[in-house]
Amino acid sequence: MASVDVPVALLGYGTVGAAVNRLLNDQADDIERATGHRLRVVKALVRDLDKDRGFPADSDVLTTDIHDILGDPSISIVAEVMGGVEPAGGYVLDLLRAGKHVVTANKQLVARRGAALFEAASGAGVQLRFEASVCAAIPVIKVLRESLVVTNVHRVLGIVNGTTNFMLTEMEKGMTYAEALAEAQRRGFAEADPTDDVTGADAAAKMAILATVAFNSRYAIEDVDVVGIDRIDPLDVAAARELEMVIRLVGAARLVDGHVDVRVSPAFVDRHHPLAAVEGAFNAVMLQGDAIREITLEGPGAGGVETASAVIADMASVIGTMGTGFLQNDAVWRALPRLAQGEHRSPYYFHLAVDDRPGVLARVADALAEQDVSIARLLQHQTVDGAALHVVTHEARQGSLDAALSTIAALPEVRRKPLPFPVVSDRGVAELGWE
Amino acid sequence: MASVDVPVALLGYGTVGAAVNRLLNDQADDIERATGHRLRVVKALVRDLDKDRGFPADSDVLTTDIHDILGDPSISIVAEVMGGVEPAGGYVLDLLRAGKHVVTANKQLVARRGAALFEAASGAGVQLRFEASVCAAIPVIKVLRESLVVTNVHRVLGIVNGTTNFMLTEMEKGMTYAEALAEAQRRGFAEADPTDDVTGADAAAKMAILATVAFNSRYAIEDVDVVGIDRIDPLDVAAARELEMVIRLVGAARLVDGHVDVRVSPAFVDRHHPLAAVEGAFNAVMLQGDAIREITLEGPGAGGVETASAVIADMASVIGTMGTGFLQNDAVWRALPRLAQGEHRSPYYFHLAVDDRPGVLARVADALAEQDVSIARLLQHQTVDGAALHVVTHEARQGSLDAALSTIAALPEVRRKPLPFPVVSDRGVAELGWE
Repeated sequence: MASVDVPVALLGYGTVGAAVNRLLNDQADDIERATGHRLRVVKALVRDLDKDRGFPADSDVLTTDIHDILGDPSISIVAEVMGGVEPAGGYVLDLLRAGKHVVTANKQLVARRGAALFEAASGAGVQLRFEASVCAAIPVIKVLRESLVVTNVHRVLGIVNGTTNFMLTEMEKGMTYAEALAEAQRRGFAEADPTDDVTGADAAAKMAILATVAFNSRYAIEDVDVVGIDRIDPLDVAAARELEMVIRLVGAARLVDGHVDVRVSPAFVDRHHPLAAVEGAFNAVMLQGDAIREITLEGPGAGGVETASAVIADMASVIGTMGTGFLQNDAVWRALPRLAQGEHRSPYYFHLAVDDRPGVLARVADALAEQDVSIARLLQHQTVDGAALHVVTHEARQGSLDAALSTIAALPEVRRKPLPFPVVSDRGVAELGWE
Repeated sequence: MASVDVPVALLGYGTVGAAVNRLLNDQADDIERATGHRLRVVKALVRDLDKDRGFPADSDVLTTDIHDILGDPSISIVAEVMGGVEPAGGYVLDLLRAGKHVVTANKQLVARRGAALFEAASGAGVQLRFEASVCAAIPVIKVLRESLVVTNVHRVLGIVNGTTNFMLTEMEKGMTYAEALAEAQRRGFAEADPTDDVTGADAAAKMAILATVAFNSRYAIEDVDVVGIDRIDPLDVAAARELEMVIRLVGAARLVDGHVDVRVSPAFVDRHHPLAAVEGAFNAVMLQGDAIREITLEGPGAGGVETASAVIADMASVIGTMGTGFLQNDAVWRALPRLAQGEHRSPYYFHLAVDDRPGVLARVADALAEQDVSIARLLQHQTVDGAALHVVTHEARQGSLDAALSTIAALPEVRRKPLPFPVVSDRGVAELGWE
């Protein structure tokens, strides 16, 4: 196959952008062997031409004017690696409308503006690929779109934030929340402002994108129900150990009777569940569907080179499928209703701080039974000023549990309304054998 | 996008073939939504027209004559799901030469005849896809070929045989080898003749294919160094538990200084290694490369519907990339030399049955030291008629270890030459953090 030179452009030339340029240079032979093409960065949009760069671009490559890219007919593929919703969003929209394929690593952009971007791409007959926006080099978007065509994926479970997974793993070993956060910052996993990670906002963006792709629908970050790891009590960490579980920040997207439900929350995960084995800054996504039972993809969910590798794979995929728009045919997405508030079902864990007086347990059990919530496991501990009850329920309606917990919170012996966490213990598949 | 009807043909109409036909029918809308095409089985080659079928084909579909497919110009995609090296191999070769794209689920065919088939496909300008031939619906071929273009994959570790993994998991819980095999047969995991599974031949075929794809070279099953699980002693199972490891049948393909080494062997896997968490009939493949650190894919590695799902995904991929031959451009593979016998390096485990006499340990330690093999861990047990020494070494040259074991076997106190198993404990990546 004759080699064809493909000029590409970058929006942004920070860590990821420089890594894309470097990999395209260093691995040019590998890319050509695989695709028959040599990709070359001819333009890169930056704010400051004079900043020091990790892998410097040629002098005529950097530009501060988007029109040098928008107006260049030789450029048909652009990778957006600048981050932020604006001005990136406006640029991407203009590029798509101008008939250029776009690859983006920007999860906030896709999770917030996905619907408009997909529509623009579809209207202009070009591709928008975004593998790098979810878990960096873990190829979950390609697998969902191209490998699981006939599998009816109905549940996606994910550990999609490495920072919090690192912190939770350290807390398991005995660190406090503050110590774990400081350690994550020291090792470069957490930003100086870790809000997006610890509140679950980063995970929520990724789960909104995964729900959109897995269910071939639209799901925005605003619709994700989020609880962050900043809500975990040290008592919970100790209880998890005693229950032979670990705490993980789990994203769950489900298709239930044609309704979509997406949530991110600390969850109590059974020690034998594959997600419990995901340690440190790693990510994992478990896809469950009719024809595949479950497939789990695990790897590093962030990193400049990892993200750049996914960006380049997406560019290669665009080149390989130009014209056919292979499996990026998102024009025929379906609108799916959200699952009603309270209808979510799960087993739950919660702990109660109570006065150590006779009869408390009976009143708690009554309140749960009244709402049809049954107790699977129970631990009771003395604390310095009373007692802690740790409760694991069988699967229950979230709304019913909430009602029971409100009744319980009103009991004079109970100190405050407990925050329940979902429990992940089944593998979602009844039998792991052949059918 | 206007819907286009794509006629396809099947070679074979057993469990997988019938499942392909059923999924193409049941999921026709999903496939059309994703690809813009409706795939329809118009011919299926069978030996016996009158046999009962799981999902019967229309009466004009079944044929016993390959020329009904070879000679039909409307058929451009054929899925080979009949199994066996011949006559399947001859048919596939003829179909490729006739300009038809072929998708196959046949690992023995690809592992034994891959080079000739790839050459024929390349010569005719058509695609040969074989996702279903390795671990059924786990999309490891697509991920290697299309997602990891710039990652320099240098090591593939896999649990790629579900039958033996099920047996080893059961043996861990206390069953004997014979009991575990009987249970695997009762549950339908193992064939009446389990030879291919327990000797490692099935895993060797898959590892040969993975090495071929990962290193963009050619690697045939004959070149795989294989030890089966039938060589495991009950003493080893007990020792693994005590060493906080589990025994898994691990396939390892490595690129070492431009040399390829592929082996399948029972291995002692550290309890904290991701492969130790793979239980029952599941498969997992871990891909390690420069730009991705490591990505692990896990799921059910067999099953009729799972295999059919992978076959259909491959057909959809062919349709989406016809003309570009996207990333199936295998014409420019490279010849890579095999690693010389004995040059493989790994930490090892072995056990010695010895007479319980003073000085044995010193002589064993001397023999190892003479070959520069150093001991990392040691367990000693009394047995009914002597003692068992369980030795874990640091990383050693296989040839050096073999020489030391020959010396040791010649000692009067040692009952027989021990069989060493590799130890898997590192994750192959020094740091799991960001760079």
